[in-house]
Amino acid sequence: MGDDLAQLRVRAAELADLHGVTGLLHWDQHTTMPPAGGATRAERLATLDAVTHARLTDPALGRLLDALEPRLRDEDPDSNDVRLARRLRRDHEKAVRIPAELSAELTRAASLGQEAWLDAHQAGDFGRFRDALERQVELRHRYVALFGEAEHPYDVLLDDYEPGMRTAEVVPVLAELRDGLVPLVQATAGPDEEPRNAGVFAGPWDVATQRHAVLDVLGAIGYDPDAWRLDPAPHPFAMGMGPGDTRITTRYDEHDFGMALYSVLHEFGHGLYDARHAPELARTTLDAPASLAVHESQSRMWENLVGRGRPFCVWVLPRLRETLGGGLPPGLDADGLFRAVNAVSRSLIRVEADETTYNLHVVLRFELELALIDGTLAVDDLPAAWNARMLSDLGVEVADDREGVLQDIHWGMGAIGYFATYTLGNLVAAQLWRRLRADVPDLDAAIETGDFAPLREWLGEHVHRHGRKFDTRELLARVTGEGLSPQPFLGYLRAKLKDTGALPPGA
Amino acid sequence: MGDDLAQLRVRAAELADLHGVTGLLHWDQHTTMPPAGGATRAERLATLDAVTHARLTDPALGRLLDALEPRLRDEDPDSNDVRLARRLRRDHEKAVRIPAELSAELTRAASLGQEAWLDAHQAGDFGRFRDALERQVELRHRYVALFGEAEHPYDVLLDDYEPGMRTAEVVPVLAELRDGLVPLVQATAGPDEEPRNAGVFAGPWDVATQRHAVLDVLGAIGYDPDAWRLDPAPHPFAMGMGPGDTRITTRYDEHDFGMALYSVLHEFGHGLYDARHAPELARTTLDAPASLAVHESQSRMWENLVGRGRPFCVWVLPRLRETLGGGLPPGLDADGLFRAVNAVSRSLIRVEADETTYNLHVVLRFELELALIDGTLAVDDLPAAWNARMLSDLGVEVADDREGVLQDIHWGMGAIGYFATYTLGNLVAAQLWRRLRADVPDLDAAIETGDFAPLREWLGEHVHRHGRKFDTRELLARVTGEGLSPQPFLGYLRAKLKDTGALPPGA
Repeated sequence: MGDDLAQLRVRAAELADLHGVTGLLHWDQHTTMPPAGGATRAERLATLDAVTHARLTDPALGRLLDALEPRLRDEDPDSNDVRLARRLRRDHEKAVRIPAELSAELTRAASLGQEAWLDAHQAGDFGRFRDALERQVELRHRYVALFGEAEHPYDVLLDDYEPGMRTAEVVPVLAELRDGLVPLVQATAGPDEEPRNAGVFAGPWDVATQRHAVLDVLGAIGYDPDAWRLDPAPHPFAMGMGPGDTRITTRYDEHDFGMALYSVLHEFGHGLYDARHAPELARTTLDAPASLAVHESQSRMWENLVGRGRPFCVWVLPRLRETLGGGLPPGLDADGLFRAVNAVSRSLIRVEADETTYNLHVVLRFELELALIDGTLAVDDLPAAWNARMLSDLGVEVADDREGVLQDIHWGMGAIGYFATYTLGNLVAAQLWRRLRADVPDLDAAIETGDFAPLREWLGEHVHRHGRKFDTRELLARVTGEGLSPQPFLGYLRAKLKDTGALPPGA
Repeated sequence: MGDDLAQLRVRAAELADLHGVTGLLHWDQHTTMPPAGGATRAERLATLDAVTHARLTDPALGRLLDALEPRLRDEDPDSNDVRLARRLRRDHEKAVRIPAELSAELTRAASLGQEAWLDAHQAGDFGRFRDALERQVELRHRYVALFGEAEHPYDVLLDDYEPGMRTAEVVPVLAELRDGLVPLVQATAGPDEEPRNAGVFAGPWDVATQRHAVLDVLGAIGYDPDAWRLDPAPHPFAMGMGPGDTRITTRYDEHDFGMALYSVLHEFGHGLYDARHAPELARTTLDAPASLAVHESQSRMWENLVGRGRPFCVWVLPRLRETLGGGLPPGLDADGLFRAVNAVSRSLIRVEADETTYNLHVVLRFELELALIDGTLAVDDLPAAWNARMLSDLGVEVADDREGVLQDIHWGMGAIGYFATYTLGNLVAAQLWRRLRADVPDLDAAIETGDFAPLREWLGEHVHRHGRKFDTRELLARVTGEGLSPQPFLGYLRAKLKDTGALPPGA
């Protein structure tokens, strides 16, 4: 077995390296590459994908996994070796099911779909997108058919982003969440025309000043300049390149420092997770996130549960007064900042939504795409269905599809099954947070004084170090003893909105 | 044949993509990667090298080339297809000769050799480097033995950098050059303590100002911000990522703007060559430079023949007065600038040497490494031999090995056979320049007015578009009708040094 295991580790290391290389090409493309380099980059990436796919689907890998299977049965089921073999088997078996022809079709449709979406979005004309979307739905059906054993067709799509999660689990959880959020938004939403963060971050501040201020915050919470980078990007993202190389990006809006501050906290949460998988997982299939939901739980925790919490506001305000060098409202105190960054407001656009309304945007998308896949909603009826849900859930009227059904690129790219992970991440974050607060009772006091070590240690020990060893459900059960539930998140939100005064104390 | 050719092109495209990806990893490592990412990056690169090597040595590629061989004999020997097959055969056959074990040894020795060199360099103690250097020499002998048919052992090493070039050709050319340069330096060298560029670029100017000034120059000579990047790097280099993506780097010295200006011109010359291989060569084995000498001919042409020429000085001085916003000597005119940037001075350090003395540094290295390889010089005798040559060729005494035999990293890395290409590049540049001036008689007038299009067009037509189709010798013969010769370079230098007044008119 020793030899077979050693061989498996070599193959896993090669695959991890190739994934890391692919990551760098994407990072570079979105931060650094000159605009004219796109066509060449697409070719490079296609070749790299083909090389990686050939290694992943190599029949010799399948034989190696088969040979190891009976012997690994006697090992600790949670050992790195067993988990490595299991994850690699999963990846291998998914990859070999997909015929090269369908794979090429999916790639082409993603490219054409993005173009069609861009064109439709610019024109505000859903008609220009409908054929591409129908094609995406049709291709998803062909993809789903490859996995005949699935309980629900949507399970197959969800599984690509959220391994092992089933539609039947997610539907009631998100419905319960929506039913809790709709009245909460009705009770707390401020006037529609209120600026983001109640205008406290309106500045203006130039990019250099904002960068200085966010690097100061990052340095205090755990960003190590020897091992991290912060770059500007139009759509902020984080990418771990492997041990010692974690890269996050942000966007600067001269008239809203909140954009940089909260996107940096968000991406820091992603980056810290990437950076702190256990060293012994490096160059294995386990040196990766458990799932998109767990990844998002980490980013949203730093952005919202930490970054929009009262203790963080107490700590950060005097620092920002110094690093921004003026420009904050003179009378603003920590309590005012806390209220400002938690203001609730009805919104049309998901990526601009506050913490309270955000998940209503996501649940709506999840339920609509589920209906597209199970055939109860036709593509032509999608805009009307979208607008109806925006009115019933968020209380807003959509006047223009640009600010409605055409606002996100995901469906154009074929990313159907993805949206739910945003909200699952918020729910997981709240569940972890409850456990964390029980384990670290003086967390608030530590944050108020700028000591983020207890928080980082707890996350490292309970979440980060495991990498991809446990899926979302397993991880939640290990840490909290619970299944997925919307109640901790709803409870957390209600408590905070009482604390800000948006909700009366007895509500 | 059509099918076989199509298959060959697919394989060539994959190899070109993998080389492009490797290039990006190197570029990123030297400009962007956080310091702690080095170990991970080394693993990623090793895997990528292994993948590329496996594709290049694939026996199926050998069979494909064999099958095509008889049929390509009837084609135009200069056609892209014939040249593609020939270059790919060369790469394939070189790669298959090298046993995996030796390849691994070479890689390890390169890494250990660099460390030993760094340590010895910091300590100024050749003794700490000698074992690593001896190991490099020994490994070169094992490498050379794989190519038993070579006329001279050094041919095998030279061929890695300068395909097809033979030691027997280079030795007399470089000896003739040295014999021409030694008296020229004696006749023209200024006082030893003179600052670089006679101090006209001493400034100081901050990095932002210098970057602004060099980007202005770059924009005028052909740098397209949509397809190029300019980044800082401790050791300036250029790297073409393929069509639409050319990256150059520079170093800024607050007290010597000449560092940024001339390194940018140098790297622009490299970048322009990379950027302008014919579009139909993209993603083939021919989308690459002919050789390191031809590459260096392009960089040195822009740096020296253009950038230190009188017409360029006339054009650039008023621009620099504007973009640097003061700081240049008030009385400096174009003639003064021309004299300053062509001042000759005896120097210890190659990378700081002026245009006239530079090649003496290189010839010395070439002759010493040749003696190491053919066994007429022992590693232990190298420092003394170095110092003796510095005295006889350049008239300087080496007091410290740091400024002598330990100054370059090349031998530590195992890059033996590389140095000559620097000087061959200078010779090729002068040979091309003579032809160019004959073909474009109003070149000086164009440059004086900032019109660099005729220069770019000529280089594109005669050099750039061919990529790797022709080797150095073929290219020179096609463009100039000549073989390699030091006389055009010596003639060019003498004429310039008369023009600056360093050499009397009748000399």
